Amino acid sequence: MTTTLHVSFVAGAAGEWSINRLSPVIGDSLNPAAALSIIEGHSHPLPDAPTWALHGTVSNIRYTTRIEAEALAARQQPLKRPEAVCAALIPIRKSPSWWALTQDERRSIFEEQSQHIGIGMAALPGVSRRLHHCRDLGEPFDFLTWFEYAPEHSDAFERMVDQLRATPEWHYIDREVDIRLTR
Amino acid sequence: MTTTLHVSFVAGAAGEWSINRLSPVIGDSLNPAAALSIIEGHSHPLPDAPTWALHGTVSNIRYTTRIEAEALAARQQPLKRPEAVCAALIPIRKSPSWWALTQDERRSIFEEQSQHIGIGMAALPGVSRRLHHCRDLGEPFDFLTWFEYAPEHSDAFERMVDQLRATPEWHYIDREVDIRLTR
Repeated sequence: MTTTLHVSFVAGAAGEWSINRLSPVIGDSLNPAAALSIIEGHSHPLPDAPTWALHGTVSNIRYTTRIEAEALAARQQPLKRPEAVCAALIPIRKSPSWWALTQDERRSIFEEQSQHIGIGMAALPGVSRRLHHCRDLGEPFDFLTWFEYAPEHSDAFERMVDQLRATPEWHYIDREVDIRLTR
Repeated sequence: MTTTLHVSFVAGAAGEWSINRLSPVIGDSLNPAAALSIIEGHSHPLPDAPTWALHGTVSNIRYTTRIEAEALAARQQPLKRPEAVCAALIPIRKSPSWWALTQDERRSIFEEQSQHIGIGMAALPGVSRRLHHCRDLGEPFDFLTWFEYAPEHSDAFERMVDQLRATPEWHYIDREVDIRLTR
């Protein structure tokens, strides 16, 4: 991203996406809600009295090399494809020990040891993904990842999530919530 | 940083630091003001009607390797040393072409081509430094760097600033303001 985009995920009684399941994976959960709205940019007002609201910024990539970025760009699809009626929002927070690591150490765990990019690549082009950074915003999570996919790609999505959760990188995750939605 | 710290730099008629000089280096300047206050954390109210306020987050390191981080840690001194009565606040914004680069490309320009860490290291321990990230916050700058030094280290500070501005990395800077202060 050469410019940033502020995005708010707002849970409440009504919204574009119905929440079918909201479950804690690691640490504290979020309060249950019926629906989720996604609000892009700062110019739109947020709904009144949401059950919760999480905020993040679509920003520059932090670990990906040029070769990896080009391989991803060749396969990845945009959000809002009409057939992609399934979605997941997975907020995660990484531990203080992760954030005490240097860039080379984090990169090594992220890709050389955990194949984070490689595992994500296997779910392309069926699963679309957008990462939102929130650590610098003082939010309760460090990252909000939003995924969209058609029902026939549910198995590829579940395989990706299971594989990521089994990596060395995931030892550094101290809070994770898994929210599944349909449009 | 294993935790983040929100910091506001607030310019106005009064404050802990007197502004002696405020000059644009690249692109638009900021409005002149007499003094600057630094407010750490979210719990303190900001002064009313400031001339301007810039916000950033002390966050995790983005380019430094373990070897470099240990060399820096062995030499760097904290802020707020009684003898460090000189300060500089240098807000910078990097260009869209910088942010379109991948991590490996940015690291190569930052250190292998520009010796950013090496140039900064030469000013240690006389010059203390704290970097605040603001790109993800939707602020007008991407980084706010705050420096403190005793008068006898002014030459080392000026040499560092001159050397950094002559690097390939600085070709990617599209806004820079240089603010000098004393306490």
